[in-house]
Amino acid sequence: MKTPAIRRVGLVSRTDQVEALRLARGLHDALVKRGVEVILESEVAAKLKLEGVPLSRMDPDLLVVIGGDGTILRAAKTLPSSETPILGVKMGKTCFLGEVDPHEALRAIELVLAGHYELEENLKLRAIVGDLKVDVVNEVLLMTGQPAKVVKLKVEVEGEEVFEGLTDGVIVSTPTGSTGYALSAHGPIIDPKVEAYLMVYLNPLNLGVRPLIVAAESVTTLRLEGPGPKALLIADGEVIKELGEGSVVEVRRSPVKARFVRLRSGRGVFYSRLKDLMRRRGLRD
Amino acid sequence: MKTPAIRRVGLVSRTDQVEALRLARGLHDALVKRGVEVILESEVAAKLKLEGVPLSRMDPDLLVVIGGDGTILRAAKTLPSSETPILGVKMGKTCFLGEVDPHEALRAIELVLAGHYELEENLKLRAIVGDLKVDVVNEVLLMTGQPAKVVKLKVEVEGEEVFEGLTDGVIVSTPTGSTGYALSAHGPIIDPKVEAYLMVYLNPLNLGVRPLIVAAESVTTLRLEGPGPKALLIADGEVIKELGEGSVVEVRRSPVKARFVRLRSGRGVFYSRLKDLMRRRGLRD
Amino acid sequence: MKTPAIRRVGLVSRTDQVEALRLARGLHDALVKRGVEVILESEVAAKLKLEGVPLSRMDPDLLVVIGGDGTILRAAKTLPSSETPILGVKMGKTCFLGEVDPHEALRAIELVLAGHYELEENLKLRAIVGDLKVDVVNEVLLMTGQPAKVVKLKVEVEGEEVFEGLTDGVIVSTPTGSTGYALSAHGPIIDPKVEAYLMVYLNPLNLGVRPLIVAAESVTTLRLEGPGPKALLIADGEVIKELGEGSVVEVRRSPVKARFVRLRSGRGVFYSRLKDLMRRRGLRD
Amino acid sequence: MKTPAIRRVGLVSRTDQVEALRLARGLHDALVKRGVEVILESEVAAKLKLEGVPLSRMDPDLLVVIGGDGTILRAAKTLPSSETPILGVKMGKTCFLGEVDPHEALRAIELVLAGHYELEENLKLRAIVGDLKVDVVNEVLLMTGQPAKVVKLKVEVEGEEVFEGLTDGVIVSTPTGSTGYALSAHGPIIDPKVEAYLMVYLNPLNLGVRPLIVAAESVTTLRLEGPGPKALLIADGEVIKELGEGSVVEVRRSPVKARFVRLRSGRGVFYSRLKDLMRRRGLRD
Repeated sequence: MKTPAIRRVGLVSRTDQVEALRLARGLHDALVKRGVEVILESEVAAKLKLEGVPLSRMDPDLLVVIGGDGTILRAAKTLPSSETPILGVKMGKTCFLGEVDPHEALRAIELVLAGHYELEENLKLRAIVGDLKVDVVNEVLLMTGQPAKVVKLKVEVEGEEVFEGLTDGVIVSTPTGSTGYALSAHGPIIDPKVEAYLMVYLNPLNLGVRPLIVAAESVTTLRLEGPGPKALLIADGEVIKELGEGSVVEVRRSPVKARFVRLRSGRGVFYSRLKDLMRRRGLRD
Repeated sequence: MKTPAIRRVGLVSRTDQVEALRLARGLHDALVKRGVEVILESEVAAKLKLEGVPLSRMDPDLLVVIGGDGTILRAAKTLPSSETPILGVKMGKTCFLGEVDPHEALRAIELVLAGHYELEENLKLRAIVGDLKVDVVNEVLLMTGQPAKVVKLKVEVEGEEVFEGLTDGVIVSTPTGSTGYALSAHGPIIDPKVEAYLMVYLNPLNLGVRPLIVAAESVTTLRLEGPGPKALLIADGEVIKELGEGSVVEVRRSPVKARFVRLRSGRGVFYSRLKDLMRRRGLRD
Repeated sequence: MKTPAIRRVGLVSRTDQVEALRLARGLHDALVKRGVEVILESEVAAKLKLEGVPLSRMDPDLLVVIGGDGTILRAAKTLPSSETPILGVKMGKTCFLGEVDPHEALRAIELVLAGHYELEENLKLRAIVGDLKVDVVNEVLLMTGQPAKVVKLKVEVEGEEVFEGLTDGVIVSTPTGSTGYALSAHGPIIDPKVEAYLMVYLNPLNLGVRPLIVAAESVTTLRLEGPGPKALLIADGEVIKELGEGSVVEVRRSPVKARFVRLRSGRGVFYSRLKDLMRRRGLRD
Repeated sequence: MKTPAIRRVGLVSRTDQVEALRLARGLHDALVKRGVEVILESEVAAKLKLEGVPLSRMDPDLLVVIGGDGTILRAAKTLPSSETPILGVKMGKTCFLGEVDPHEALRAIELVLAGHYELEENLKLRAIVGDLKVDVVNEVLLMTGQPAKVVKLKVEVEGEEVFEGLTDGVIVSTPTGSTGYALSAHGPIIDPKVEAYLMVYLNPLNLGVRPLIVAAESVTTLRLEGPGPKALLIADGEVIKELGEGSVVEVRRSPVKARFVRLRSGRGVFYSRLKDLMRRRGLRD
């Protein structure tokens, strides 16, 4: 897609690491000096003794996020416009969504301001339970609320049962999320260009269960059967709701996209980033 | 897609089972009696002491195949027109491609002749090595030619390396094939409506390797590095070529589709058939 | 081992199923009629309006447990003498530890009273953290206390590191437990006659991690590194303790054994029971 | 065990690598100079233009093997005394059995000659089919003789069926072999001190099959049912026999042990070596 002009830069960072805050300060100062309008997220601003705006009221053309995948996912969920382009600066244990290392961050933002970037648009999923709707970049997770006690789930795709049984939970993941929690849970990797999403089960009693990839247009329902413990609905790592027996969660493609700023383009870019990820995940963390 | 009118029915069967041949005879006679033009495959014809035509010269509007997935895959590869609709009658150990059980076969053909059917069009893959081109319904398999001796493979998608290392082989599978050999090799299941294909490795030395799902438009190359044993290129279960060090196999989407006759329609049909498959594969074979 | 004479029969049951309570009543009455001394567990007794004794003060020669594996594991942990022989009557979702079906229960107890039985003695593990010691029949589980947030663990066997990294948790399982939670978590099956125990990781970030089987005499330490969420220590499905950063759990062979009453004997008995289990776990739950 | 005095040193090497032959020459000369009796294997000797003796007629107190696991396994199988201590010098793609790197080889041999070493004694398995008996250090593999065509196997332990179905094959592995081919085939790792052996299936159709660890004293039979292709019996990577329908292979503990020279001692040594292996197998090969 064509890349919109960027004028206002939002800046958010994890606040539990000195280096992250120091980088935030440096980027803020350097951009302001260049005459760029910078909006600091309020918690970061407080730490830096500057003025800030809560993420939920921020409306930048670009959001720069300093942190790991968790920080990016939380920011993506809180921004009022879910389609704001995000540039991730990697500072964390798991950083697959981020694009640049800290020392490249300023140069990267300059390139973006000059229009030299690509927007990667990735499928999001929407989980619907009763009146509640939540969009995820990575995954919806329905899991037991009681450690080591299985729940009884029934999962249907397009009205046809694809799973019924006892399990710790089920991950419904976007292709973007396939390199996240779903991968740890023995799932496959899916190129984000594939129009599909993924189901992976957490320690199901039925030993013949396999990950399932369904078309992006398919609607999935997760039904909590009973009797058994309560379950938790978790969206991109954040607990959203506690669910009791009989609850039904519908998962379907979201009408909005996740947008990530990429500095390299071309079909193979995903695979080049994947190579780094696999090297790191084959080593000690 | 709209369903073309069927007039000429081709009939092929496995020839190593009395019941399969008996069914072939029964279908032939019943259809001829109804005035349908039936073309018997020559080996089956010989067993039944009738006249026949080799598959490679047959040009029916519909091919009825009595047997397991192996019989269907062989027939699909031999027919001159790779897009002839196929109706599989299940008689074998593994029958996921087939649509009807033997006792339903005649009724099913009558429905098809009356136009009451759907055509499921599935992605095929094309393997290209030198001058050789071969299309597959299920999978391309590149594996060591020497039992228990690994080969060294390099796999690239869109020019980016996604695997390099020692392995017994790699399966490049269509969504249709994801319920075949790739599933035994610890791969995920992919709805045939997903525009993608799958790579699964056979006993790789690198323990962190995971199945990879790439977009249907992506081009994959398999490179046999050395030193090591010869490798075999296997297409839908049939050995096609022996390959030496330095050989390169390109795999990409085929311009033609596999077409299967389905009597039920709707988005969930795949999942209803999947349920049967999983039940059988969780049991003893 | 030789089988001690049984005189006093303890009786415990799950209390949330009418059929289980009805069976408890039936067994109680039939045994009392035969002059056998029966000690009812107090909760069951209350439901049946009879007199009972808490498990923690019960000292029978044989404990009959009506329920699934969870009921058996809880009873085993509560009995004052951890080596009391247990006869499991299968009434639950997962019943691998149990020996007989409900309709066989009375006949089975009669056989045991007549001395016609074998005692299967299985390795137990002991988890030690600070002053706390707990013995398990199936498994010790150290897992994150916050759903979907990994902990950082270091695992050492005999002082040598065998794992360090981010994971949802680790299961340390006896051979008996290898058909329980560890099996759902992709672990192998171990014949209880093998003098060894097993480690299986829950969704580790490192993709090359494999289950590890160590000699029964080996000592394992689980170290909760940080920073990260609290962890839970779970013994045979029951949360025992919350652990913070820097906590160390030592796991080693317990000096006591688990004793199960078996009516069939011989080396192959485990495999005959395994066959049933696998059939059930390959099917829908 | 106590370590016997070493006087005669046998020396074998892979012959397809210049560095391996150069090391063989260096070790030979240095040891002869020190007055040690060195027996060169005949193929190595021919390459070095020295005199040699075939492995099958060699009777040293210690066999030094330069190469990877394949070279060690072949040497172990050919020596007349299957209990000759082996010191592996690592030169190959997969070197878990070897003890020292090339540059440490001379110093290591000197330590062994001075009696400063330990003997690790590992369980071997014996495969028996008709009159043929073969002992393995790593694994017995029964697999299809026709690529991508499954065989029908029935596996029994102590006379009880533990598997029946279609599969590419089955690996029966010692604990030593658990870090070899069985590990690639999704098996667990077993400390060689555990008195047990392991079964892992190669791409079985039944999706609920799990690796199984049985007691060292258990007897396993592998039965080739039909109809289907021929199968190959492979011992430590070498094809031993072709088997037809109805063939039965018995696998049991061998009366002899594999003996490896280790320079470090103590319970944790295996885990220290394992750490290296896992690091390598998580990386590119």
